[in-house]
Amino acid sequence: MAISEYASHDGLGLAALVKAGEVTPVELAEEAIARIERHNPKLNAVVAKLYEQGRAMAKSPAKGPFHGVPFLLKDAFGDMAGTATRDGTCFRSGEPAKHDSTLAARFKASGVVILGKTNVPEYTLLPTTESALYGAACNPWNTAHSTGGSSGGSGSAVAAGLVPLAHANDSGGSIRIPASACGLVGMKPTRGRNPLGPDFGDVVAGLCSEHVLTRSVRDSAAMLDCTHGPDIGDPYYAPPVERPYLDEIARPPGKLRIAFSTSDLDGKSFHPDCVAGVQQTANLLADLGHEIVEAAPPLAAGEAAGLFLPIWATYLAWDIDAETARRGRPPKEEELQPLTWGFYEIGKTVTGAQFLALREQSQLMARRIAQFMQTHDAWLTPTLATPPVKNGIIDLNERDPLVGFLPLADYVPFTPIQNLTGQPAISLPLHWSADGLPVGMMFSGRFGDEATLFRLAAQLEAARPWKDKYPKTWN
Amino acid sequence: MAISEYASHDGLGLAALVKAGEVTPVELAEEAIARIERHNPKLNAVVAKLYEQGRAMAKSPAKGPFHGVPFLLKDAFGDMAGTATRDGTCFRSGEPAKHDSTLAARFKASGVVILGKTNVPEYTLLPTTESALYGAACNPWNTAHSTGGSSGGSGSAVAAGLVPLAHANDSGGSIRIPASACGLVGMKPTRGRNPLGPDFGDVVAGLCSEHVLTRSVRDSAAMLDCTHGPDIGDPYYAPPVERPYLDEIARPPGKLRIAFSTSDLDGKSFHPDCVAGVQQTANLLADLGHEIVEAAPPLAAGEAAGLFLPIWATYLAWDIDAETARRGRPPKEEELQPLTWGFYEIGKTVTGAQFLALREQSQLMARRIAQFMQTHDAWLTPTLATPPVKNGIIDLNERDPLVGFLPLADYVPFTPIQNLTGQPAISLPLHWSADGLPVGMMFSGRFGDEATLFRLAAQLEAARPWKDKYPKTWN
Repeated sequence: MAISEYASHDGLGLAALVKAGEVTPVELAEEAIARIERHNPKLNAVVAKLYEQGRAMAKSPAKGPFHGVPFLLKDAFGDMAGTATRDGTCFRSGEPAKHDSTLAARFKASGVVILGKTNVPEYTLLPTTESALYGAACNPWNTAHSTGGSSGGSGSAVAAGLVPLAHANDSGGSIRIPASACGLVGMKPTRGRNPLGPDFGDVVAGLCSEHVLTRSVRDSAAMLDCTHGPDIGDPYYAPPVERPYLDEIARPPGKLRIAFSTSDLDGKSFHPDCVAGVQQTANLLADLGHEIVEAAPPLAAGEAAGLFLPIWATYLAWDIDAETARRGRPPKEEELQPLTWGFYEIGKTVTGAQFLALREQSQLMARRIAQFMQTHDAWLTPTLATPPVKNGIIDLNERDPLVGFLPLADYVPFTPIQNLTGQPAISLPLHWSADGLPVGMMFSGRFGDEATLFRLAAQLEAARPWKDKYPKTWN
Repeated sequence: MAISEYASHDGLGLAALVKAGEVTPVELAEEAIARIERHNPKLNAVVAKLYEQGRAMAKSPAKGPFHGVPFLLKDAFGDMAGTATRDGTCFRSGEPAKHDSTLAARFKASGVVILGKTNVPEYTLLPTTESALYGAACNPWNTAHSTGGSSGGSGSAVAAGLVPLAHANDSGGSIRIPASACGLVGMKPTRGRNPLGPDFGDVVAGLCSEHVLTRSVRDSAAMLDCTHGPDIGDPYYAPPVERPYLDEIARPPGKLRIAFSTSDLDGKSFHPDCVAGVQQTANLLADLGHEIVEAAPPLAAGEAAGLFLPIWATYLAWDIDAETARRGRPPKEEELQPLTWGFYEIGKTVTGAQFLALREQSQLMARRIAQFMQTHDAWLTPTLATPPVKNGIIDLNERDPLVGFLPLADYVPFTPIQNLTGQPAISLPLHWSADGLPVGMMFSGRFGDEATLFRLAAQLEAARPWKDKYPKTWN
């Protein structure tokens, strides 16, 4: 391997080179470290460098399918023994974890070499990645623009070729939003598919799903093969998996019935680039033989956001209260961003009974959407309502979340829905804006049915490959 | 069939007689109605008579395994189109349901003939079955004693032979407690095993499991075969089922490693009858070749109750608030029992963040218990700490729940645990007190593993049959 090719390979591609003896895991780790050192000052993707641990790991990575492949954990739910997870907030004490999360242990068993942790907004609260603690992560396609959030550091690192894939998690779109903004593949698996133990049963009452951001569909499928499956003591299970996802993507999807939307559920039109993306993708799907119908699940205007925001605020209050208990004191004024304080204040007002009502309403909404999915194999929307916005558009110093968030009120009309329902959804890099910024297309699938989404994604990747579309500045 | 034999058969037994042409579903329904009319004045088991619908149903029951078998729904989550569910409270308006619950529809498809609804305490709040709305259900073994709760009406009806099996549900022990008190088989399935739709996703954030009270292990297994499996839009799934439970009970359990406890988790000893029950059951298990170890999961004193009670109170607040919203007004003073008011007041003080913390702690407790279950196939305890108490022991007119509940503070040391963890547990009628009252033995199993519990239960039923132990007053 010419090491300069590094960034042109996906994770399995690099693992194949290791297997063929063309490169060693140590060489790959050094290349990744060199690229982080070279590019991170402009990208701010990596916020904790774990070179020492990574170099040690590179000497004998586990014998999994990603043997020797450089990797980064997200600075949220990315617990690895001996390392701190800050969740993007000055209030988290940053004590080193005493043990690996089950997910981190399974990542390690996949063979990856973990070299650092990636940028997140405070408490992973935003659809962009900006915080007082870390500053903004920058989009490799145009560093003035947002990476999306909350897994924006991972999105930036993978898009810039620092690593071929990186950890991400998604409680309201945080895998799919950076996938869209950075031109990557971002699968949010079904609720319960990937483990959250041993320190949590579920997170945000089932809204949070773990996985990775990748450049190829096969990397996403292969890593899910490595990580999915119930952990001892999980509160519930995802539906069973019929065969490895890596096998699924070798199977044609058959003729699917796919719904698509060219406006959001409130009837608001998307940015023209997003409308064009949906239309071109729908045409491509029709060319591939699928049945395409303009249709959306029966949701009231603002319904999903109206459920999601108070649930999320309650979760934030729980998280800050838990840290308060650990530290034995509440946050000081300067330890939380004003916008986070505002969310926290809202979260504290939600009663337990109200939380159960929000949960009930979410579950009834999920039944309606599941009924819609009975007659539609997938639902196509843009992942975001516009191409990636610029950094700085959200005012972190505004204490009223409604005011601070106003510029992005219509930015993420769809992604929280699948967290409320638990169904899987994948963002694919199928379109680019007039300005050359990525515009992700999102397919939502049936609960438990990542397989159909992976087969469809592989078909689209083959029909309209994006392998050679990457921000070449960084090579 | 001599119709006087009616009460000596289990559900599958009656269905076999129908199949053999020895009796018709209409004759069975009339016998059940006659027995309800004769005995219910003393038992107060049935609180809503649905004879008209039942007689219509008896003319052509579904062709399931319980074809033509008389059945009763519980007056809680027992929604059937055109009938009211009151949940034992004067505050519920009692509007007839517009549609069957998924569970009721599956019950119907099993072939049963639904003849009424059974007594519950207000909002299913108690481990006894007493309410201002309905009065107390009475235990057929001794009518001065409690049936247990909250599915006490079903327990009484099945124990007295009014019907061979009846609907029950369990958020803190409400299947297992009346099974213990009435000398029945009460399986609480794994979280998510039976459906709660279409009107709910889950109930009490996953604590509530649906099933039936039966006289035989095979009825419990066969009905679970009829009802289990995900509904469209369920929030999560139970682990998959390997084969029909009715097939499982024909398979020997093999040599199991079974833990047993002769004191509660706070170190308090049980009633001597319960200790004797555990010891005799442990001896029987040893005789059957199992490995028996005195051991219990690592739980702190009061841990489960300390989590369960505020979760349950929050659920009550949600339920009363939902009815308030439906009716457009809060409950009047006389519409809730003082004890229920007291619980409601507690529930209203729980914040959403506190509720998430209770959920998190429950899930971490579940991980510890699941670890224990890795090396133990089942855990044997008495279902209750004493034989069934007398009715009237709880003061429904006491507004302080801690005071009202005080006489039963140590009555249910174990049953809420499995609702918090989601694991299955079954109460079996394996012992009787010195006074001739039933003393149930509870086996808790691994999450998702009803199969082992059913196989073990069938082995115990064969080794120490209880078929001929029933309260003969009612025949």
